[in-house]
Amino acid sequence: MAARPRPGSDAGIPSAASGAGELFQYLRDGKPRTKAELAELSSLARSTITLRIDALLASGLLAPYGEAASTGGRPPQRFALNGAGHVVLGIDLGASHAAVAAVDLAGKVLEETSVASDIADGPSVVLDRVTDLAHELLQRIGLADDQVVGIGIGVPGPVEHSTGRPANPPIMPGWHEFDIPAHLSRTFPVPVLVDNDVNVMALGEHVTSWSGVDHLLYVKVATGIGAGIITNRRLTRGALGTAGDLGHVRVVDADDSVVCRCGNVGCLEALAAGPAVAARLRAAGLDIDSPQDVVDSVLRGDVAALQAVREAGRSIGSVLATCVSLLNPSVIVIGGSLSLAGEYLIAGVREVVYQRSLPLATSRLRIVAATTGDRAGILGAAALVLDEVLSPEAVDALVDRQRQPARASG
Amino acid sequence: MAARPRPGSDAGIPSAASGAGELFQYLRDGKPRTKAELAELSSLARSTITLRIDALLASGLLAPYGEAASTGGRPPQRFALNGAGHVVLGIDLGASHAAVAAVDLAGKVLEETSVASDIADGPSVVLDRVTDLAHELLQRIGLADDQVVGIGIGVPGPVEHSTGRPANPPIMPGWHEFDIPAHLSRTFPVPVLVDNDVNVMALGEHVTSWSGVDHLLYVKVATGIGAGIITNRRLTRGALGTAGDLGHVRVVDADDSVVCRCGNVGCLEALAAGPAVAARLRAAGLDIDSPQDVVDSVLRGDVAALQAVREAGRSIGSVLATCVSLLNPSVIVIGGSLSLAGEYLIAGVREVVYQRSLPLATSRLRIVAATTGDRAGILGAAALVLDEVLSPEAVDALVDRQRQPARASG
Repeated sequence: MAARPRPGSDAGIPSAASGAGELFQYLRDGKPRTKAELAELSSLARSTITLRIDALLASGLLAPYGEAASTGGRPPQRFALNGAGHVVLGIDLGASHAAVAAVDLAGKVLEETSVASDIADGPSVVLDRVTDLAHELLQRIGLADDQVVGIGIGVPGPVEHSTGRPANPPIMPGWHEFDIPAHLSRTFPVPVLVDNDVNVMALGEHVTSWSGVDHLLYVKVATGIGAGIITNRRLTRGALGTAGDLGHVRVVDADDSVVCRCGNVGCLEALAAGPAVAARLRAAGLDIDSPQDVVDSVLRGDVAALQAVREAGRSIGSVLATCVSLLNPSVIVIGGSLSLAGEYLIAGVREVVYQRSLPLATSRLRIVAATTGDRAGILGAAALVLDEVLSPEAVDALVDRQRQPARASG
Repeated sequence: MAARPRPGSDAGIPSAASGAGELFQYLRDGKPRTKAELAELSSLARSTITLRIDALLASGLLAPYGEAASTGGRPPQRFALNGAGHVVLGIDLGASHAAVAAVDLAGKVLEETSVASDIADGPSVVLDRVTDLAHELLQRIGLADDQVVGIGIGVPGPVEHSTGRPANPPIMPGWHEFDIPAHLSRTFPVPVLVDNDVNVMALGEHVTSWSGVDHLLYVKVATGIGAGIITNRRLTRGALGTAGDLGHVRVVDADDSVVCRCGNVGCLEALAAGPAVAARLRAAGLDIDSPQDVVDSVLRGDVAALQAVREAGRSIGSVLATCVSLLNPSVIVIGGSLSLAGEYLIAGVREVVYQRSLPLATSRLRIVAATTGDRAGILGAAALVLDEVLSPEAVDALVDRQRQPARASG
């Protein structure tokens, strides 16, 4: 049981609005609601609701919203999250691109942009580039820097989530242990949360297409293979943040002559990631240079390419069958560049997962293609930081600050 | 994001003690603390702490506890969880035994008992037997029925946790969809939480020996093989409650001539569970009837038995290697009857897990034998219900009830 510390008022009397953050959670979806509806949802007394709503209105997080239908008399007032005025930045850094979005507090993208950007340019260059992009975005939608309340950022490598520092990222030279939050905070002094791209994409798919689902597995099939795991509606990072690292799991009945770059044989990545499929097709005489060529060949209907992608799907499926038995998710989302090859990859995954799992575990399991495409990164990065800045604790702290405007920092 | 409904006061003014349940979480370990220490831990104002402590004292959950050392003047009062007066029952039902424990609110076992009991006697007979055992226990420690505030119960089969009903349990004839909470509530009208034995044992190991660990995998190796998964300090049950069902995962390089009772080949259970090991030794000419005979042979030092158990460990390890890559736990606990064969089983597990995992995922991984033995069930069952009845919401509700003694039910 983790006791949860929370910032409290030190004004001498307990804050009547303490708990406003909890009430606010019912309004995070952006839908307007009356006090009666909130009382129904929260089981709180009407008087308590009134106090908390007043506090949230004063904080600027909530605003009155039109009027509800009424059976007579004065129509009841509705309230909704005040999307205007505050945004978070969702940032997606890839090996060769940088994307930035300004996202309102209800998770709606207001404006976004993406540029070619080599991650190997190093952290200072890349992060300053991103900051410039952010300024441009904000200008376009008429917002000032101080209206940014948080930044979420996904990077293409392992990250120590608690500190926001990459940890020995193989394709990010110069980024090892770089303090990303400190650098971005020089321009935007707000909470900055960093995670690896797969976790961020898992969040992006979850909030966009599967927000009602408690247990979801997102699998990225690209240069490598990795998974983002959502259990009990939360991202699971594991003890050292390596959860979901499926690239070097041994595949059942794998061809042992394929040696992986990790030194083991039979690794999933050495059989089913983009470069492995490309290499196999090249060896068969096809004119294939890159994983993108594989996708193009599949889309052209090249039979050898179709077969190779489907076989990669089977290898991935044999590993996911174990994941299904272990975690019993309701949804597996397949994303990453190789998933652009269409249904062939997923057909291979489905074939083996359904063959190798007990009926109950797959009775309601859906295995689907990612829907957010290359926007999963910015959407997930925004969701990462929204969960932080709109948490009950963070909202309570904001409300408390608004109630004590005369106090200096303390 | 799951908004969390909470029961609230309807007394017309917001409860000053609302939040008492949250403060109480800092005292759940049973250690006495001063108001100053609680202010330090919680970041709450001293005046808020005082109000909440008063509410908790009135509820009977907290009691004054001696005096702390002081640098002079009146020594500060300390407060601690009031273990006396309230207990939960932890119940562990196996195929052939029933165990009951009375556990105080700090998780300490006050009294326990275990009897031979055939689960096939059916739910009414078995649950009435358990109720009788509970009455005996309570009498021995001088408590009345109404001092029981919750019941946790583990059963040897799949359960729909939200309703407490077994779901097609293979070795529990007559229990399918039986409403266990309703039956027990006739005698003890308190919250009754039901889960399968492996989940309950995972909780028991976690609270007893690994309470500081966020990510733990408990693996029971007995007649079947299953896992209880703790991620982010919470039990993960999956979408349909089948999470951890590892018995029918296909083992890498398995002998395909072994057909499992599920109809597939190469299943972990068909290779490494107790009956499979016993059958293999019997086929080799040993006088082995049961898994217990396997354990006895190992403890006698029979080389064929040692080898067979170690080989079973390797098969289990090959499946757990994938689980380690997926979940990155810090601890794997091996329990169940076959684990009583000592280090041979675990040695086989370690051999393959360390061989087949990336260095980072295993750099701090410990693979250990269960320490709670046949008490994991009662300890975990008690922990299951303590988490419920001592949650912030439940404590707030209790405090609110105490503040409105004149109100009728409503």
